[in-house]
Amino acid sequence: MNILITGAAGFVGRQLVRRVLFEYPNATSITCVDLNCSALPSSPNLRIVNGSLVEAAVFADVFNCPMDLVFHMATIPGGWAEENFELGTRVNLMLTYRILEALRCQHSAPRFIFTSSIGVFGHLDGPVDDDTVPRPTWSYGTHKAIGELLTADYTRKGFIDGRVIRLPGLVARPPDPSGAISAFLSDLIRVLGAGQDFVCPVSAASTCWWMSRHRAVENILHAAAVSTDVFPPQRVYTLPALHCSIASVVDAIGMVTGQNTRDLVIYRPNSEVEERFGKLPPLNVPRAESCGFRSDGTIEAMVRCALQGLSDGQ
Amino acid sequence: MNILITGAAGFVGRQLVRRVLFEYPNATSITCVDLNCSALPSSPNLRIVNGSLVEAAVFADVFNCPMDLVFHMATIPGGWAEENFELGTRVNLMLTYRILEALRCQHSAPRFIFTSSIGVFGHLDGPVDDDTVPRPTWSYGTHKAIGELLTADYTRKGFIDGRVIRLPGLVARPPDPSGAISAFLSDLIRVLGAGQDFVCPVSAASTCWWMSRHRAVENILHAAAVSTDVFPPQRVYTLPALHCSIASVVDAIGMVTGQNTRDLVIYRPNSEVEERFGKLPPLNVPRAESCGFRSDGTIEAMVRCALQGLSDGQ
Repeated sequence: MNILITGAAGFVGRQLVRRVLFEYPNATSITCVDLNCSALPSSPNLRIVNGSLVEAAVFADVFNCPMDLVFHMATIPGGWAEENFELGTRVNLMLTYRILEALRCQHSAPRFIFTSSIGVFGHLDGPVDDDTVPRPTWSYGTHKAIGELLTADYTRKGFIDGRVIRLPGLVARPPDPSGAISAFLSDLIRVLGAGQDFVCPVSAASTCWWMSRHRAVENILHAAAVSTDVFPPQRVYTLPALHCSIASVVDAIGMVTGQNTRDLVIYRPNSEVEERFGKLPPLNVPRAESCGFRSDGTIEAMVRCALQGLSDGQ
Repeated sequence: MNILITGAAGFVGRQLVRRVLFEYPNATSITCVDLNCSALPSSPNLRIVNGSLVEAAVFADVFNCPMDLVFHMATIPGGWAEENFELGTRVNLMLTYRILEALRCQHSAPRFIFTSSIGVFGHLDGPVDDDTVPRPTWSYGTHKAIGELLTADYTRKGFIDGRVIRLPGLVARPPDPSGAISAFLSDLIRVLGAGQDFVCPVSAASTCWWMSRHRAVENILHAAAVSTDVFPPQRVYTLPALHCSIASVVDAIGMVTGQNTRDLVIYRPNSEVEERFGKLPPLNVPRAESCGFRSDGTIEAMVRCALQGLSDGQ
């Protein structure tokens, strides 16, 4: 079995690589591609490709053997893609299309796991459920929504066995600027967890969708492992993130770390951030849950996972 | 003003060319591209390009001057695209993308009119209105839906002024096989109008969405002429087609031509055609109508327009 992981050195990818090594011990090869894979573990069946799949030579090198299972994680985050339209188009739109075409030409219907995003939804007026249809309002969401549509069509045609999951904002990212505007969710947990003051760009009552990286990776692995039948014709599930307020997360960090975190937060809402990430409505996706996709369960569990991931230093 | 019409020799395109010549008499150039433009009229400002825009040389030739107004009509019809996935992808997906990129690189935000299709909707359980969101179920609809998403995003970014309208099945096409499964709507009107027997692939009670080519062309011109403000952020309207049964159209043909058309029809429903084109639900798009898009008004008017178009021989 040949496995491919794109974006393998990213925040989610590098954790996924470790878990794939564990879950697929008999894989012939696990090809990991990213700009700089130096932090990835080494293993006899791990094939490391340093470079961008946008480069023709890298692409040809990676696809010199047929793949059986692809985790397509490579992405330009939303804020960065919005500022760099051409780069976002090359990676978020055209690379996804080119990978799908490469897999189609294998004539073996490989399994294709695509990490989409809640960024496909755009402005949301009411609660989101399993049937909410994307109406993207920026380029990142547009390109992810197109990747979803193509995955559904390629699956329907029998070219691939595609499975898409929409990730919410994940916590807790390390402090380096990734271009994800939702990074403040991570900053909040990391800074308060360290007992430092945090200037919050949204108000205390703001509601967001939250998930730990650990939980996201388990859901990605689940998407790869379950029967193809659990996916609807659209081939996509929105993951059951936790819907909770900033204030409730601040309190949970206090519970977990034994600090008075309320006194550490200074609220300075930024209208643009609040508009895009602070008004997320209730999320209720019973079909995704009945197919085995899971949230972190409780805010405390999510905070514990997030802080644990940070202390692991990965 | 430089105008471009792709698919200019097609059923809709060739009628649009005549109307554009009339509506834009002061255009510097009207570039018409299609595989065989021999049937198009001649005019000093008409620039004819015989060839496929999929060919790099043709594409470069057409875009050797900046365009101010583009009618992007070139398409591989649904049934044909479903059988020829690669051709459908090249034209319905990649050509649309490449045209958008060429227009973006002009840095002049040209007006871009894209004819999408009701094929974006896929399976429909209930009535369709202005807010119904596409869930395409075949490649043609998938590629049109992607064109809609890209048009909205390119407009939001200020790269173009995009306007999309979704066309229903248009009548009455000439008898040459075009690959459009919905061609039976045209065959019905043409054959019964000529007083001949017609074998109908859907039942008498089947309901479809109908529009004459004349009315479609007027709606396309309207999309190009109205203020940009009438379009929502999604930049798309479903045209207000007539929702009526086969039996009611058969009767209208009888009224218009003075024949007993009921006796000329033999119903032999084909389950696939009936599923895709014979169960169209009520269509109610008041916002599209309030922005000036029009149906044919009555079934008789639609039949008269369709028969008139046939007798004009264009």
